[in-house]
Amino acid sequence: MNIQTLKGFRDFLPGEARKRQYVISALKQVFESFGFEPLETPVLEYEEILMGKYGEEGDKLMYRFEDNGGRRVAMRYDQTVPLSRVVAEYLNELPMPFKRYQIQNVWRAENTQKGRYREFMQCDIDTVGTTSPLADAEVIATAVKALEKLGFTNYKVLVNDRTIFEGLPQGAITAIDKLKKIGEEGVYKELVDRKVTKSPEEAKNLLQSITEKTPTENLGQILGQLELLGIKNVEYSPTLARGLDYYTELIFEIEIPEYPVGSVCGGGRYDNLIGMFAGKQIPAVGFAFGFDRTIEAMEALNLFPEKVSNASAQVLVTIFNPELKQKSLEVSSRLRSNNINTELYLEEAKIEKQLKYADAKKIPYVIIVGPDEVEKDVVTVKNLKTREQTQVPLDELPKFFQTK
Amino acid sequence: MNIQTLKGFRDFLPGEARKRQYVISALKQVFESFGFEPLETPVLEYEEILMGKYGEEGDKLMYRFEDNGGRRVAMRYDQTVPLSRVVAEYLNELPMPFKRYQIQNVWRAENTQKGRYREFMQCDIDTVGTTSPLADAEVIATAVKALEKLGFTNYKVLVNDRTIFEGLPQGAITAIDKLKKIGEEGVYKELVDRKVTKSPEEAKNLLQSITEKTPTENLGQILGQLELLGIKNVEYSPTLARGLDYYTELIFEIEIPEYPVGSVCGGGRYDNLIGMFAGKQIPAVGFAFGFDRTIEAMEALNLFPEKVSNASAQVLVTIFNPELKQKSLEVSSRLRSNNINTELYLEEAKIEKQLKYADAKKIPYVIIVGPDEVEKDVVTVKNLKTREQTQVPLDELPKFFQTK
Repeated sequence: MNIQTLKGFRDFLPGEARKRQYVISALKQVFESFGFEPLETPVLEYEEILMGKYGEEGDKLMYRFEDNGGRRVAMRYDQTVPLSRVVAEYLNELPMPFKRYQIQNVWRAENTQKGRYREFMQCDIDTVGTTSPLADAEVIATAVKALEKLGFTNYKVLVNDRTIFEGLPQGAITAIDKLKKIGEEGVYKELVDRKVTKSPEEAKNLLQSITEKTPTENLGQILGQLELLGIKNVEYSPTLARGLDYYTELIFEIEIPEYPVGSVCGGGRYDNLIGMFAGKQIPAVGFAFGFDRTIEAMEALNLFPEKVSNASAQVLVTIFNPELKQKSLEVSSRLRSNNINTELYLEEAKIEKQLKYADAKKIPYVIIVGPDEVEKDVVTVKNLKTREQTQVPLDELPKFFQTK
Repeated sequence: MNIQTLKGFRDFLPGEARKRQYVISALKQVFESFGFEPLETPVLEYEEILMGKYGEEGDKLMYRFEDNGGRRVAMRYDQTVPLSRVVAEYLNELPMPFKRYQIQNVWRAENTQKGRYREFMQCDIDTVGTTSPLADAEVIATAVKALEKLGFTNYKVLVNDRTIFEGLPQGAITAIDKLKKIGEEGVYKELVDRKVTKSPEEAKNLLQSITEKTPTENLGQILGQLELLGIKNVEYSPTLARGLDYYTELIFEIEIPEYPVGSVCGGGRYDNLIGMFAGKQIPAVGFAFGFDRTIEAMEALNLFPEKVSNASAQVLVTIFNPELKQKSLEVSSRLRSNNINTELYLEEAKIEKQLKYADAKKIPYVIIVGPDEVEKDVVTVKNLKTREQTQVPLDELPKFFQTK
């Protein structure tokens, strides 16, 4: 039997799970500070809700099957189509604009050789039901504040308006979007290969005509609001196109220069998608964080605070011997009632073994309550990083840890 | 097309989602205060990992299918079998005892007419790798502290030791377990019906012999540690059996007398299950919260703090007119940078419409920045519950909300 996870699926052992929880909690806090509200939708939907919404590729990569009741069902593939379904289903009870965030897993049977996962987390925020440029500025501001909350200080927001590509074939947009990756010559070649232009000369003119475009009035308004919201590092980029063709106006991406693997966050306005089930146009603007990529970038830039790599418990209370177990229990309860996360060693073992356990679990401190300590009404606190030992009176113990 | 969720599956709109997050966050805090660490496992596993682990009924209710690569896969059905897989797969890297909590959804194609869901959340903690009675006492203490954290003050912990049923057929245990539900006469009848005893008289003797049993030595030790940990309201209940036959020693349930629908939490020691993939005996003790039932009980007893039923944003900053929009943006940014969750109204609309929006979203306060306010360097704060209005100087605004 295969005692392992499926290819593309991951277990998150405590060390990794803590990192994920830290990021999710920081993102939630920022999303809520702008008034975005949580939404959860089921993992399974009727297949017909999801089918055909992500192109042929999507239908192929989607996990779909027949359930025990003979219904065709499919696993969540993104969070935008479920949002459309929710908006249609509860149209009369949702106050508009509806501002929601959603942080859930999605499933795609991707080729895992590309380092992609088949189960991965998406973090989306969307404002549904308004065309106000203030809504556009706000989602960008939220994204920026979220990145800052995670510790990123150096970032660049690239913005553009999809309407500047009006009249151009999709092939031209796809080619121009690759400018950063393949350079000008590469774009010329691709424009010719895609038969958008007849010659490299003509391609050069086309690319130049795009790069010379000035921001649209709509983009000008958004940029103005961003300034009022105090958002800096915003750069107009007329060649930014973003792959998805459902964007209608604003598009944006955030780059971390020190982590050039790709953008950690991107989004835009898409006014023709959310209304698909409601049977009318419902405007929307939003963005998604690449969750795995954000964690990778944070690791590369060393942005996780030390407490995240440590155990949940700040201290391990050891048990010196069976007679003194009671003392250790009392110390552990006292620490917990002072809001200090405290693990109690559960077995009878040599102190060395208990110290090793704390080391392996990355618990920063160990408390020893031996006969000497009991006599003097103190405990010995050992810092496992510095290996320093201190004797701390029992009644000063909570304060000792609260200030760490 | 069915614009709806599948039967037994639920959307959680903001009001419900906030309640869930509140409970999850409180549980995590308590679990971590005892040194339990988060673990996440994938939704999909190889079918052979899960099949046959939950009896015939489980195989029938499990969501199973063939993925695009022709693998037989199954959706998470509980969190104990995945834990067994994790323990086997990472046996050499997990410090023992391994104390983990897991809060994830599971899927079961239950008959939804019973008010059951097909997608629901489980909250488990388990201590793996030790037979120490202190571990048993600790999981009970953790469960109790979690309930107290959620606001339950009146609860009863029923404990028993499964070994007192040794030698009795499973039918006898099942019948005795129903004592509370069907009464003594009911149990006599069931014991006879199940052919455990020949007469009601004999059944009465059997039941009496059970109720007269004193706590085992193991249970006595656990009860002693619970006292040292300051856990009260613990009651020895020799007729408590719990349905699952995988428990080996300690079993317990927590009842909320004011919410007599059933126990919100239960668990015990199961020493023969976790090792199933590792190929050796690995002892374990743990419990699970019934997440939906816990939320129902909290609603019934009115335990959710008011902030949970309110919007994420504490205040809505309205926009008086296009000229004063800038002022409103500044006020909203200032509040946010003082850690006050602040929503900005995104469109141009009459103040009445903006107030209605705040009411519908349950945002407790509204700020109005009109020409009078700008002149006097104040804002008008309206409490939507009391309908009171106050003028607050701009520089006192953060303090005004921080003390609310």
